[in-house]
Amino acid sequence: MFMRIDHVGIACHDLEEKIAFFERTFELTVVAREVNEEQGVKEAMLHIADGEGGGSYIQLLEPLGPDTPVGKFLAKRGEGVHHVAFGVPDVTRALQEIGGKGVRLLDEKPRHGSMGSSIAFLHPKDVGGMLTELVQAPEQRA
Amino acid sequence: MFMRIDHVGIACHDLEEKIAFFERTFELTVVAREVNEEQGVKEAMLHIADGEGGGSYIQLLEPLGPDTPVGKFLAKRGEGVHHVAFGVPDVTRALQEIGGKGVRLLDEKPRHGSMGSSIAFLHPKDVGGMLTELVQAPEQRA
Repeated sequence: MFMRIDHVGIACHDLEEKIAFFERTFELTVVAREVNEEQGVKEAMLHIADGEGGGSYIQLLEPLGPDTPVGKFLAKRGEGVHHVAFGVPDVTRALQEIGGKGVRLLDEKPRHGSMGSSIAFLHPKDVGGMLTELVQAPEQRA
Repeated sequence: MFMRIDHVGIACHDLEEKIAFFERTFELTVVAREVNEEQGVKEAMLHIADGEGGGSYIQLLEPLGPDTPVGKFLAKRGEGVHHVAFGVPDVTRALQEIGGKGVRLLDEKPRHGSMGSSIAFLHPKDVGGMLTELVQAPEQRA
């Protein structure tokens, strides 16, 4: 079901400052920037590796405001890992299978993710306290 | 510098219960179990993918006691993502480069990690709030 660790999403206060840090310190390169109004974030993807069905990235997330999910996370927990995303061949099918096993789905159907991907989130309390995202890269779409 | 996301380490109260959940829900397989007295944990590695220089895994961590690092993490934060590990070709060299850029090192030199790897941790406050591990897989050793 999981083909790769697609990305680790890190919540931060200042996207540009964190991009500069990760580029300088770990020799990573930003391959995409995006503002996602639906999720209330502006974000950047830093490429680590290519893998089956898509790549692996560090995703940096700055909230568009304090009342967004990432804004609330920062207020409660401070900067750090917000979620972990796993690549799947078919996110609709994965949601059906995982939901059928009793895991609560935060998204009943896929929605728009980074770089044209199709994504859905699982309830963190049902997945060991980890906010879990499923990612279907655009080239994998049926 | 980073070749892959090696693993996401998840702190949990009951290793066997969480292994069963991840195997059942996401069709993952345990490829290694270990007790690491030095780090005060018992752990399991669930294989996700193979990549450059090593694999990608979910690592489940149960503390050996409340006064261990993972035990204290659980008491403070509850179950969830404890750290993220990135594969590097040479952990000694990576420590020198990263330390030279001003990031505080929790390990000045590599120590024993999962499945014969050589590892070192970076200070989470210097890496966007993410406890960051560097991993050199055994087959990559000089």
